[in-house]
Amino acid sequence: MNSPTADLNREDLHASVSLPVMDTMNFLNEITHRYREAISFAPGRPYDGFFDVEQIFTYIRRYLDHLAARGDSPAHIRDAIFQYGPTGGQIRDLIAASLREDENIDVPAESIVVTLGCQEAMFLAIRALMAGRDDVLLLPSPCYVGITGAAHLLGVQIAAVHEREDGLSGDDVAAAVQEQVAAGRRPRAVYVNPDHANPSGVTMSLRARRDLLEVAARHDLLILEDSPYRLVSTGRRLPTIKTLDRDRRVVHLGSFSKTVFPGARVGFAVADQVVTDARGRTGLLADELVKIKSMLTVNTPSLSQAAIAGALLESGGRVTDLTEKTAAYYSDTMRATLDCLDRVFPLDVRERLGVSWNVPSGGFFLTLRVPFRADEAALARSAEEYGVIWTPMSYFYPQGGDDHGIRLSTSYLSPAEIEAGVSRLAEFVRSEIRRPGR
Amino acid sequence: MNSPTADLNREDLHASVSLPVMDTMNFLNEITHRYREAISFAPGRPYDGFFDVEQIFTYIRRYLDHLAARGDSPAHIRDAIFQYGPTGGQIRDLIAASLREDENIDVPAESIVVTLGCQEAMFLAIRALMAGRDDVLLLPSPCYVGITGAAHLLGVQIAAVHEREDGLSGDDVAAAVQEQVAAGRRPRAVYVNPDHANPSGVTMSLRARRDLLEVAARHDLLILEDSPYRLVSTGRRLPTIKTLDRDRRVVHLGSFSKTVFPGARVGFAVADQVVTDARGRTGLLADELVKIKSMLTVNTPSLSQAAIAGALLESGGRVTDLTEKTAAYYSDTMRATLDCLDRVFPLDVRERLGVSWNVPSGGFFLTLRVPFRADEAALARSAEEYGVIWTPMSYFYPQGGDDHGIRLSTSYLSPAEIEAGVSRLAEFVRSEIRRPGR
Repeated sequence: MNSPTADLNREDLHASVSLPVMDTMNFLNEITHRYREAISFAPGRPYDGFFDVEQIFTYIRRYLDHLAARGDSPAHIRDAIFQYGPTGGQIRDLIAASLREDENIDVPAESIVVTLGCQEAMFLAIRALMAGRDDVLLLPSPCYVGITGAAHLLGVQIAAVHEREDGLSGDDVAAAVQEQVAAGRRPRAVYVNPDHANPSGVTMSLRARRDLLEVAARHDLLILEDSPYRLVSTGRRLPTIKTLDRDRRVVHLGSFSKTVFPGARVGFAVADQVVTDARGRTGLLADELVKIKSMLTVNTPSLSQAAIAGALLESGGRVTDLTEKTAAYYSDTMRATLDCLDRVFPLDVRERLGVSWNVPSGGFFLTLRVPFRADEAALARSAEEYGVIWTPMSYFYPQGGDDHGIRLSTSYLSPAEIEAGVSRLAEFVRSEIRRPGR
Repeated sequence: MNSPTADLNREDLHASVSLPVMDTMNFLNEITHRYREAISFAPGRPYDGFFDVEQIFTYIRRYLDHLAARGDSPAHIRDAIFQYGPTGGQIRDLIAASLREDENIDVPAESIVVTLGCQEAMFLAIRALMAGRDDVLLLPSPCYVGITGAAHLLGVQIAAVHEREDGLSGDDVAAAVQEQVAAGRRPRAVYVNPDHANPSGVTMSLRARRDLLEVAARHDLLILEDSPYRLVSTGRRLPTIKTLDRDRRVVHLGSFSKTVFPGARVGFAVADQVVTDARGRTGLLADELVKIKSMLTVNTPSLSQAAIAGALLESGGRVTDLTEKTAAYYSDTMRATLDCLDRVFPLDVRERLGVSWNVPSGGFFLTLRVPFRADEAALARSAEEYGVIWTPMSYFYPQGGDDHGIRLSTSYLSPAEIEAGVSRLAEFVRSEIRRPGR
């Protein structure tokens, strides 16, 4: 048989693999790989200096001891590590307890679905809610790329809502709804990152949270709330939108990647909405998410759940008891970055140059505004000539946006790297401003 | 604010959550829950009697020692458990080595994507390949529900190809392709479970494997090969279709759930097809699957990969060295089930009654054919009156099929349970045959 090979053209593959954001992420990876000596403000990785290899054994052992103490049989304990588990998750009760302790979110364990990080939780929620071709998902602009990517995987229509300096505004969401409805589409849900958003660093005010709930109720939208940075930030925390929610209007999406450790990939969705079927039988939205999950990942690894459960048990069930040290670390690195920016661009200088930045109250990210195009060509010059890497803000606009923004991640660098990195960044910015023909 | 709650009707959710197979699986779960004393031939679970809780610590320690022995820094070793990992996976080299040792599949590590079990691997492959509205996925009938479910999640069109007693036939696949093309659709891939298929138990002959490759080449189809039971079966193994493949025609989908343990949820896709983009740059299909995975689960848990790697390292890199005991166990339970069936339905009796079954050479499943409707009502009578549970074969037909088949899973029961269970099953079958008005 002398058949041709089964090789492929990318145009013949699903459009999601050719998404601009996918290619731009590749570009960023290439740059990072090529300029290994550069200081990188690009990756939004958790700081790992506090991890200790022996912890993993302690966590798993702690969970096994807990099962034994509550009287589980040896066969059950063995299966809690080695066997398939329930699709909805085996540590839902512990997660429900931690949500009550940490967030004043009081939901039954059955309304929780344990997922592969927040990413799978987003995917499940979108798949369940975006049912028809006219259904639209509203996204802030700029926005976390994971939700935009998940929508594209499913061919779900999106509509971008400009994010203001204090986050998504209810009025803007209401206007977007009206525009979509006028175009014959049906807005079903709005995604929001209320605390120290990725990528902007912006936090919604209490008033903005209440406004969003009201607009969502008025237009019968669900709110997909994703807030990975709030429990690793110091200072006063505003209530989650789910905590304020009295109508089961919010599907709250969570993760232990930033609070415990990313290598377990354990997240969850809180979906306590009542769903009624054609025969009048009722269940929870969580039950529907479980069905979808069974066709995607079957169940979250028992081993991962055991490790996270062990960590929760060690801390008395409160995530906030686990994150004191890391929250202080992130607060210091954000503060250090802001101080360095103040030093390299004093008030009069930044005004003259047209450079500015926001001052996030926590989280991993801040936005630097510059008077030149912060595009891939600029990034390449920054990496090659100045040894500093950052992320173009334009990567994060779901439907396009201006390219005068830079995302700086402050979570992963040491104070010395921040100091040197911000100096290099200042030199790069000055050189771009001086650049002829920009 | 006195807004209505955000509760939902199931018709407003995506159609995948109302799939018949989802409701039928719920029915099966309910039955199993309600009749706890019944002997169940329903779950296709791996036998867990050989697991030992302390193994998990040994496996993880083994992997950490391996990293230390090859000279990784303490920070790198720590991150190999706790941090995010590469989206494609961190143990691709070990998996590539085991594929060479166990299966004579020789592919570069970069062509492998480590996934959340085989389920995510199927999802990634379907999402990448099924690009346009006219693209069709060919499925055997009956078929594993995971692939049908994944196709429905994505709204991908499917076409069922009748599975014969020796598996999928090339001629039937060719006929299905022609029928689809005539209807204006584009068949892109065919899914197949060549060894001891779930649900039927059927194994494709060597000839049938070669035929399928030839038909796939002729019609430019990719073959999605999923074979979870072959390395946990004794006796002579035919080569995988990927082993026979000279044209990169096969995307091979694998899992360590049956061979090592399910609680890690580690599987993989082998996607060594070359993909060329519009600018003429080439990469592998694996790279495209990685992009999709980044929007689905980000990466397979580092912790899970560490545990599986530890098991592979302990066995000298061969999965087959890990599965000797379990393969013998499954061989015994399959043999015991077949012997019991022979005893309760001797040749003359089975001919008179119109009862028959196939004799799988391995795996977890066999098909019992009965002369009455083996539907949910029959299952309810079987559970309530005879204390025995099984799965209606009708659950597994992607586009409908006859309802005179019963799937028996033999993997999870003890010899005593099999003996008692088959006796009860025989009584149930005889009572159904005598049942007035059937």
